[in-house]
Amino acid sequence: MPELRKDPVTARWVIVNTETPKIPGSFRLSSNKKSSKVCPFCPGHEAMTPPAIFTIPRRIRPKSGHDWQVRVIANKFPALRIEENIEKTPLGVYEKMGGFGAHEVIIENPDHHKEITELEPEEVGDILKAYRERCLDLRKDPRFRYILIFKNYGASAGATLEHPHSQLIGLPIVPSRVTGELEGAAWHHGSAHRCIFCDCLEQEGREKILTIFEEGGFVSLAPFVSRFPFETWILPKHHEASFDRISDEKLLSLAVLLQRTLGRIKSVLKDPAFNFMIHTVPMTALAEAPYHWHIEIIPRLTQVAGFEWGTGFYVNPTPPELAAQFLREENPRIIS
Amino acid sequence: MPELRKDPVTARWVIVNTETPKIPGSFRLSSNKKSSKVCPFCPGHEAMTPPAIFTIPRRIRPKSGHDWQVRVIANKFPALRIEENIEKTPLGVYEKMGGFGAHEVIIENPDHHKEITELEPEEVGDILKAYRERCLDLRKDPRFRYILIFKNYGASAGATLEHPHSQLIGLPIVPSRVTGELEGAAWHHGSAHRCIFCDCLEQEGREKILTIFEEGGFVSLAPFVSRFPFETWILPKHHEASFDRISDEKLLSLAVLLQRTLGRIKSVLKDPAFNFMIHTVPMTALAEAPYHWHIEIIPRLTQVAGFEWGTGFYVNPTPPELAAQFLREENPRIIS
Repeated sequence: MPELRKDPVTARWVIVNTETPKIPGSFRLSSNKKSSKVCPFCPGHEAMTPPAIFTIPRRIRPKSGHDWQVRVIANKFPALRIEENIEKTPLGVYEKMGGFGAHEVIIENPDHHKEITELEPEEVGDILKAYRERCLDLRKDPRFRYILIFKNYGASAGATLEHPHSQLIGLPIVPSRVTGELEGAAWHHGSAHRCIFCDCLEQEGREKILTIFEEGGFVSLAPFVSRFPFETWILPKHHEASFDRISDEKLLSLAVLLQRTLGRIKSVLKDPAFNFMIHTVPMTALAEAPYHWHIEIIPRLTQVAGFEWGTGFYVNPTPPELAAQFLREENPRIIS
Repeated sequence: MPELRKDPVTARWVIVNTETPKIPGSFRLSSNKKSSKVCPFCPGHEAMTPPAIFTIPRRIRPKSGHDWQVRVIANKFPALRIEENIEKTPLGVYEKMGGFGAHEVIIENPDHHKEITELEPEEVGDILKAYRERCLDLRKDPRFRYILIFKNYGASAGATLEHPHSQLIGLPIVPSRVTGELEGAAWHHGSAHRCIFCDCLEQEGREKILTIFEEGGFVSLAPFVSRFPFETWILPKHHEASFDRISDEKLLSLAVLLQRTLGRIKSVLKDPAFNFMIHTVPMTALAEAPYHWHIEIIPRLTQVAGFEWGTGFYVNPTPPELAAQFLREENPRIIS
């Protein structure tokens, strides 16, 4: 029977199909095979991109050729620009402001064909370190209110270049989805004096129905009110509002868990396109805010249609507890 | 230069690319060609679907065969069910309720190959009449809080059946996107004692930069803070909160405008997939609520990616005033 579930953070409802759930193999996927076009992100083509803003060098320095492991550049076709002004202009009932912001590309590693799932854990750690360092650097500019780090993998997830990369957008405004989470978390904290994300984790720690993997203080799980089939979140198990305060040691645990989780999504769902994004506190909030940073991974398995656009209400064809089971157990007997 | 625009209703911001705008012809589209599979919605196959809930007969009754022009049925694979209970159950920090609701399909006309753009205006009027009648009927059941009418056209817009059809979902909850609009409208009404949608229309009446077409008390326009390229809204020019209070005479004017607007989207953008949905006041609100019903049409031209999912912040590659010009003027010299 279908079921309606209420998100304890944002108070949004999701329709969950618990009756005829979609399982791995029942989604139509487009291929994510790579072509052999000239790639501006590959080593040796550095002149095709804007100059590096930040790099992490290779652990073993090669005798010749490129020496970067991770390379961060400005997006050549930015959604927002650092040189725009931030003044607001009224236009009758409307309001506009200059398109100020940052739009950077994190080239995750030199190899065109190695995604996060194929790297050494330390190399994944380097990507996460680049995320953190760019956040810490941009935090110095008080015009930024929010920084979103995200990855689009596969054309149907919005990726336009194949070389493994993530993106960063720095905004002069806290976006509405984050505001919604912050308000929900603040509301719960105001009444219960606890973090709502911590409460969810505490409940899951007892029930163990949504958990996929655990690793060094982090957990990957299917949220009880997932909007999308096989939606997967990674959260620190202990309260931490801000991603960019993460230690080097923790970065490596997170790298291991991210890699393991993405690897399982790849094998169980046959290499689907996906997006992931890091939700953290806005620059303007205190590091002690009642918020809990996390990574949201969304495999792109279904089309969002008129109902979802019209309402903000999602229909999820795969109950999260079933999705978690598939991702945790990878049981080929059930899958095929 | 990129520009940030604030929606006067929901207070959301959108990034608008005013510098290198995408114009018709620069989007990648998938084909919406029809196949020749057996169609359960075609006349003669009525036994393949649940029985009709409501029909509008053909104007000229045929001597033999089907006699319906519009046929409304229950969705065979419903997201929600009328027989589910509506009780809320706490599950620790979470809350769930039975999947109560209505999910109906409006088969728009007997001809598999005739979309709204190919029908007689009176036949489009019949579709809109079916929308209204189903709303009025469901309104009698106090368990419904909201009814969304929407259409998915083309596979990339989420359509799974080809025969021209729209859908209706009745919900026991007012969805978050509608709540956002209602709250924004109430806030403006509280301070200005005017409808924010009326204020926008009044400003556009003077500026004439976003208008596409006008017809018998309705206007189609590109909203100043469009989230998507070529997003188009249709609104009554005079204040009206509730769609289902529309008169028969007005229905025909709306039909003409809807057909003309969709026809222009089809010719200028080369038959794109699209969604449209009707936003109206919840069942629980008064018909005099400070809200203004409207139809939102969203051509599916771009992929929504990690940034949009992560933030609720949209990047629109086509300034709405340019989109309006293309749709209004259909100038083939500029388009090609």
